[in-house]
Amino acid sequence: MCELLAMSANVPTDIVFSFTGLMQRGGNTGPHKDGWGVTFYEGKGCRSFKDPMPSAQSPIAKLVTEYPIKSESVICHIRQANSGAVCLENTHPFTRQMWGRNWTYAHNGQLAGYKDALPVSVHIPVGSTDSEHAFCYLLDQLHFEFGSKQPSSETLYKFIAKVSSTINELGVFNLILSDGDYLFAYCSNNLHWITRKAPFGEAKLIDAEVEVDFKQETTDKDIVTVIATQPLTNNESWHKMTSREWQLFKLGESALSGSEACAGSPNDTAEI
Amino acid sequence: MCELLAMSANVPTDIVFSFTGLMQRGGNTGPHKDGWGVTFYEGKGCRSFKDPMPSAQSPIAKLVTEYPIKSESVICHIRQANSGAVCLENTHPFTRQMWGRNWTYAHNGQLAGYKDALPVSVHIPVGSTDSEHAFCYLLDQLHFEFGSKQPSSETLYKFIAKVSSTINELGVFNLILSDGDYLFAYCSNNLHWITRKAPFGEAKLIDAEVEVDFKQETTDKDIVTVIATQPLTNNESWHKMTSREWQLFKLGESALSGSEACAGSPNDTAEI
Repeated sequence: MCELLAMSANVPTDIVFSFTGLMQRGGNTGPHKDGWGVTFYEGKGCRSFKDPMPSAQSPIAKLVTEYPIKSESVICHIRQANSGAVCLENTHPFTRQMWGRNWTYAHNGQLAGYKDALPVSVHIPVGSTDSEHAFCYLLDQLHFEFGSKQPSSETLYKFIAKVSSTINELGVFNLILSDGDYLFAYCSNNLHWITRKAPFGEAKLIDAEVEVDFKQETTDKDIVTVIATQPLTNNESWHKMTSREWQLFKLGESALSGSEACAGSPNDTAEI
Repeated sequence: MCELLAMSANVPTDIVFSFTGLMQRGGNTGPHKDGWGVTFYEGKGCRSFKDPMPSAQSPIAKLVTEYPIKSESVICHIRQANSGAVCLENTHPFTRQMWGRNWTYAHNGQLAGYKDALPVSVHIPVGSTDSEHAFCYLLDQLHFEFGSKQPSSETLYKFIAKVSSTINELGVFNLILSDGDYLFAYCSNNLHWITRKAPFGEAKLIDAEVEVDFKQETTDKDIVTVIATQPLTNNESWHKMTSREWQLFKLGESALSGSEACAGSPNDTAEI
């Protein structure tokens, strides 16, 4: 299994605090020693830092914690390999282009029989993970359903949630996906999220001796949502997502959510 | 205008020496202050470091020079913007996937009337540069010509050279392209290359007070080709490419070359 971390914010925000906690789980407080990666969006552009080395010992991870890159959307992943060798092409997040946007994807879980159950023809994996294969399948489905024109966000993310549930039938599929504007999370079994906004308080990392007083780091208008496999702090209240629940965030706030277990139910909430 | 740097080698080799020289041209000895990027291949995987900041002042560029990443194929670019704002999505190199490979592309030059002359329909640019647009056009042409099956390397790169000449009609199109195995260079007006192999000698950078004795850094079996807009050393003999000439390298050695100015002429040399 792996660990996921993602952020959506209404102002460019650095993720150093959460990243510092997560990186400790890569070979130090956690067993996720088979590489790590993080993708930062700045507008429509994004840049990734990746390393097949354990994050707790990676000089590139050190750079990311020391050089705070401010972003409105971030996806981060640390890996404990269960499908595919430990090498760069198997290191998350994966980024591909569609409809003139960069789409970034990271997966936690494991899928059985995915090669037969999830055929791909247009988007072909580079590496050998179930994760990248499922990403290519998802992009193929979007291509076949919507062609060259990106649909409305509501239509798009409801369709992505439906495809996620199809993939989830094959095992465990906790998914984070972003195009820089929206941040989408699909929960198979383990995902938690928290929205921080005024009045801000203090937070204390579980995995490192680090505390932060967000009051000192923010303005009253800042809204920041963080999603993680497991809560990263022990003095805040995180929302635990239920199985087959999905959440869509934009600029730090919930934009739409639902549950594929009860499709079309009143679980579909806020409008985009 | 911008500056290009690329490397093809038969053993994983670090590019720190050449990169150190090039980075000085990004805001220090040269005017290329509008960002920089470098992509390293490790097998089929690749990772990029990018920054819209001038390379001479970039902490990420500093990391790349201090943390030698060994690679068999590298593409690097420093930018002096002439088309498209200075922002991350306009920062080279650009990487996209086709046929289960990562394709990385960087361009030096400027193209006029490219939106009309180079229509795109499948691969849509994320940013607003002529460079990324031309990359999308090239990928579209590959998609239309070869569909879902990658052709032989000889067929593929001769076709890429032909498309490059079409694009070159619109202005200046010095191109570097790689899938990790092959490194392709098309010269519009400014590209130089050098192959270093035993017996290795000393080299002295033009842009920084750095000398290296490659004898100390290599084995007798190492073969490394470096391509750059302008020679980076002043005590070695670089090959200057002619207009419309192209070169294909694999594992540090010339694999195929030709000139679109005299297509099918005896300029087509070594077989792949």
